[in-house]
Amino acid sequence: MTGNADDTILLAVTGWDPDVWQTEFAKAAPARKLVLDTDTAKEKIRYALVWKQRPGSLMGLPNLEVIFSLGAGVDHIFHDHQIPDVPIVRIVSPDLTMRMSEYVVWQVLDHHRLGLRYRQQQTQKVWHEDRRQPAAHEVTVGILGLGVLGRDAAQKLRNLGFRVSGWSRRLQTIEGVTSHFGKDGLKDFLKDVDIVVCLLPLTPETKGILSMSMFAQMKAEGPLGAPVLINAGRGGLQNEPDILAALDRGMLSAVTLDVFKTEPLPKVSPLWTHPQVVITPHAAASSSPQALVPEIVAQLESYERGEPLKNIVDKAAQY
Amino acid sequence: MTGNADDTILLAVTGWDPDVWQTEFAKAAPARKLVLDTDTAKEKIRYALVWKQRPGSLMGLPNLEVIFSLGAGVDHIFHDHQIPDVPIVRIVSPDLTMRMSEYVVWQVLDHHRLGLRYRQQQTQKVWHEDRRQPAAHEVTVGILGLGVLGRDAAQKLRNLGFRVSGWSRRLQTIEGVTSHFGKDGLKDFLKDVDIVVCLLPLTPETKGILSMSMFAQMKAEGPLGAPVLINAGRGGLQNEPDILAALDRGMLSAVTLDVFKTEPLPKVSPLWTHPQVVITPHAAASSSPQALVPEIVAQLESYERGEPLKNIVDKAAQY
Repeated sequence: MTGNADDTILLAVTGWDPDVWQTEFAKAAPARKLVLDTDTAKEKIRYALVWKQRPGSLMGLPNLEVIFSLGAGVDHIFHDHQIPDVPIVRIVSPDLTMRMSEYVVWQVLDHHRLGLRYRQQQTQKVWHEDRRQPAAHEVTVGILGLGVLGRDAAQKLRNLGFRVSGWSRRLQTIEGVTSHFGKDGLKDFLKDVDIVVCLLPLTPETKGILSMSMFAQMKAEGPLGAPVLINAGRGGLQNEPDILAALDRGMLSAVTLDVFKTEPLPKVSPLWTHPQVVITPHAAASSSPQALVPEIVAQLESYERGEPLKNIVDKAAQY
Repeated sequence: MTGNADDTILLAVTGWDPDVWQTEFAKAAPARKLVLDTDTAKEKIRYALVWKQRPGSLMGLPNLEVIFSLGAGVDHIFHDHQIPDVPIVRIVSPDLTMRMSEYVVWQVLDHHRLGLRYRQQQTQKVWHEDRRQPAAHEVTVGILGLGVLGRDAAQKLRNLGFRVSGWSRRLQTIEGVTSHFGKDGLKDFLKDVDIVVCLLPLTPETKGILSMSMFAQMKAEGPLGAPVLINAGRGGLQNEPDILAALDRGMLSAVTLDVFKTEPLPKVSPLWTHPQVVITPHAAASSSPQALVPEIVAQLESYERGEPLKNIVDKAAQY
């Protein structure tokens, strides 16, 4: 075990029971001290593990060296405007990546294979095979956001035979995937997609991007009818009234939403009961402390051996 | 174009509009003659394309050389006990294989990612992430039937991280897949599976195999609760009262059925409304004439060039 026994790790979380993190940390790094409160011994805190920290709770820690996000997204950190000037590291975990790709493949197939239609038929005891069953190679799945998650999902969708395209802020080249980038590339990306999967980070630039002005640039008809939208990124990326309006005008044929402006989704939201909406409760790729803690500990240890930190957040871009 | 202009192809189908087959045949092989009725010129018929032919309709054709099944399964041919002694060729089509694998992956993920649970919650406007979210490598998907379809599905499930096992009549070796075979191997296969996918052919040996005596050999608990059953083979493989009893006793946690003893599934069937049953209308892997006809024509042409027929049915085993 490396690290100084006096080094302390701050667990700064809200909305999440800290016990399970403490339990897993005690298993993975029994010699390290994990504290919840910064009131005592602030000068001993060297690292912080963070999920929606209370604003200001990371300040006044003179020896803080690294902030570790407990989620793949880091927007929850930037809600706080008092963040010390130390590197912020995002979680990149094979477990998280695999779960997100599962979710994306599941929901793409659910729309591609007419899940909503067949479930409606089942409730009515109707037996009718819809002959509109395009082959995967006739359907273009477009992925917004080509980070680690987007690239893995793209590969798994290609393995199933789908045409895959992608869009990201900066050009990302992926074998077999048609890549677009930047403001100008978005238009070309949108006009060809049948199923749009949003895995973008939530930043000042992407906030509210899933809106009528985007839907209006999509094609009106495709092998599945109008395009399908799947958002497994963040609720702040989407304009919910615009999504409902686009569904009702036939600009979108169906949507899957795992994330929402307000979570839990309020009972008054018309999204709950819309027949063309699939809702999951922010369950696409949950951070499992059992899977993540050993990876954070491994990062800590490699950092203490003098190796460079991986997956550092770009603070200007906020992701 | 090879083939004798005088050669005629018989289209012997029931329960399927022959027009679409004729249209596609006219496109793919305009010089060949496709007839629906054998009353005239029986001696000119060299090939038969068959889907649930009327019993006896393949007899009295002195120059018949090959029977082509228009589906991957061939049980529909053996309902007729008067079948001439010529080779029967099954359809093995990349299009059909891809569609079946899509269906299998879709339904495996739907159970693995708690689709039934989240849909029930949506109808109740309940937001609750179920923490029982095992990783794919903790879940064993067992495939009954390791023919072309089973092998492709096994590979695609492995790509998503699942543990995959398989069972077939004779040993099939597939990289990364734990294979069992024969009567003795079935027991070992069953005691380890969390999700069973049935892609078996319907033969005298497999009829009714999905029954209480099979469910009783499965483990009682796993990462998803009791095992899940997915049948995309044939309805005749399943004992429907046994499936309902196994669900109600908690021996199965959920099932997906694409096929049924009687199709369309009668409105009186309690399967329609069972909360743990997903029903699709025999839509897992529909033969699309557009995709299949060019492949049948290619087989005909290679046969006429003197190459051996591929995918010949074993008449003793009836598959």
